[in-house]
Amino acid sequence: MGQYKKAVQFSRTGEPSEVVEVIDMETSSIKPGMILIDIEAAAINPSHLLTLSGGYGVQPDLPAIPGAEGIGIVKEIGEGVSNVKVGERVMIPPYTGTWRQEAVVKAQNIFLKFPSEGNPIQMAMIMANPPTAWLLLRSVIKLDVGDWIIQNASNSAVGQYVMQLANIYGLKTVNIVRRKGFDELVSDSKGNICLIDGPDLKERVVEATKGSPIKLGIDAVAGDATQRLADCLEENGTIANYGLLSGEPCSLSPNDIIFRNISLTGVWLTMWLRGRGSTQEQRQSVYEELREYIIDGRMHAQVEATYNLDQIKDAVKHAMKKRNGKIVLLPNN
Amino acid sequence: MGQYKKAVQFSRTGEPSEVVEVIDMETSSIKPGMILIDIEAAAINPSHLLTLSGGYGVQPDLPAIPGAEGIGIVKEIGEGVSNVKVGERVMIPPYTGTWRQEAVVKAQNIFLKFPSEGNPIQMAMIMANPPTAWLLLRSVIKLDVGDWIIQNASNSAVGQYVMQLANIYGLKTVNIVRRKGFDELVSDSKGNICLIDGPDLKERVVEATKGSPIKLGIDAVAGDATQRLADCLEENGTIANYGLLSGEPCSLSPNDIIFRNISLTGVWLTMWLRGRGSTQEQRQSVYEELREYIIDGRMHAQVEATYNLDQIKDAVKHAMKKRNGKIVLLPNN
Repeated sequence: MGQYKKAVQFSRTGEPSEVVEVIDMETSSIKPGMILIDIEAAAINPSHLLTLSGGYGVQPDLPAIPGAEGIGIVKEIGEGVSNVKVGERVMIPPYTGTWRQEAVVKAQNIFLKFPSEGNPIQMAMIMANPPTAWLLLRSVIKLDVGDWIIQNASNSAVGQYVMQLANIYGLKTVNIVRRKGFDELVSDSKGNICLIDGPDLKERVVEATKGSPIKLGIDAVAGDATQRLADCLEENGTIANYGLLSGEPCSLSPNDIIFRNISLTGVWLTMWLRGRGSTQEQRQSVYEELREYIIDGRMHAQVEATYNLDQIKDAVKHAMKKRNGKIVLLPNN
Repeated sequence: MGQYKKAVQFSRTGEPSEVVEVIDMETSSIKPGMILIDIEAAAINPSHLLTLSGGYGVQPDLPAIPGAEGIGIVKEIGEGVSNVKVGERVMIPPYTGTWRQEAVVKAQNIFLKFPSEGNPIQMAMIMANPPTAWLLLRSVIKLDVGDWIIQNASNSAVGQYVMQLANIYGLKTVNIVRRKGFDELVSDSKGNICLIDGPDLKERVVEATKGSPIKLGIDAVAGDATQRLADCLEENGTIANYGLLSGEPCSLSPNDIIFRNISLTGVWLTMWLRGRGSTQEQRQSVYEELREYIIDGRMHAQVEATYNLDQIKDAVKHAMKKRNGKIVLLPNN
């Protein structure tokens, strides 16, 4: 008792860098069935920024601690805990506020461990984006080896994971970005084609793929970008939307919806984690598969900068800018 | 030989009433396997007008005879024809140009007959709109007795058939129209609720349905109207778009697509008739079911005016106006 640890908190929604503040929280004693984790790393994701500004699909009661994923080392275990040991590295249970130095969670919610050796930063990002990439490629339509897909916002972390996972599954990717300078990133992530978005996108895609049929469009941008993906799809194609980077509604012509049978559907990890179309066993198996790829380096997201908690306002401001990689918090640095 | 019959023809696409012209066509002799039909009635549908202006999903080689559905009496049969007899009333095979006094078709393409007695006008409209209503209610999602659906453009012929068929199936309908004056039409078609579209649609729907969950939105308008339907749907709801009356692309917020799992999909009779998701036996069975409802009067579309072929330009102009019912051609009047 009497020991204090740092945490980020927000008591109102608004401009993200304005609403975050660092507070000192007193370490509590660990009750039966609970464990205390020292958080090693936690990313700042677009969904966290949306939560801070009040625009996410699920908003917490305030005040709340932001962040929803991370990795840490078990520091203390409560009475009756047998599934984890002190010193083990574990994935923080989904949707635990993680922008803090330590967190107390139910031991039974720990379902994924990592080896203690190695840099924790890539491991810290397993919870949200890699399974989103998995859902986009594995839960929307059936894709076979050699099939083409097209995605926008390809330079995002999900975009990178989609390219890497598509490569593992033998799929080919057309990767759309909104500005120059991502050829190397796409190539590093084993993406097949990198193109800059624009009104003549379809013609350039046809040229680059030699007219290969494309079954799936992955849309993180919405607005007119949805239509431009649809233009590139073959008849009966599907668009899976998982993001709203443009801030505009998805726009899709009835000519495509009716005459070309293009469908538009959504992918949201939160609902999958809550059991929509999945059981705990299936989720466990997906995370174990993704863990393998993260440990062997086949899946990784570019990181632009790391910050400690005292720098939270700068970190959030940085995360809201155009970037070339993730912003990751190292709470105990 | 030497006998001439009238037909409507278009040799270029453009303003529908300008591109249609009446021509005299020489009656040809009937080859083996073919039959000659006197066309009694043929409707002018929005899809025919779109074809005339060049905007439909499938465009014919020109010159072509417009119209794609109708009913007629078999006048002559070729050698080897056994499935139809002279004097029988038959549905003209789908996508035969029907704005003409007589048509020669393959006997084997005749798959639906009607009793010879009774007014042919309602029968003439069975091919396109009633099965579109059936597809909207039966092929998109599973609906159970007591479920609610919502549709826009409810005063259209498809809209009327949707209400009537929903009533037959025990479904409840919220029916949106874009202007006043359709309460009686909706009530005649056994629609449950009639509301005028507007920004506060959702609130009025919640009030009128006492907050009943709505699983399916049927969209013939597109543009912002798609979003307003989505606003009224429960989580995991589906929008089936089958029309583009606004001329705008469907607009749908990622907040609904992602966070509320609203999907957008298309329904197009043409693809179903070509075998997408159906066999000839299934199509036959659907048409036989719908024929029963048309004969007993449970399905019917309001008709505003009838014209003969010499009045084709007036008929097409009338069809392009705001109307309270179908425009039907009676080619042999």
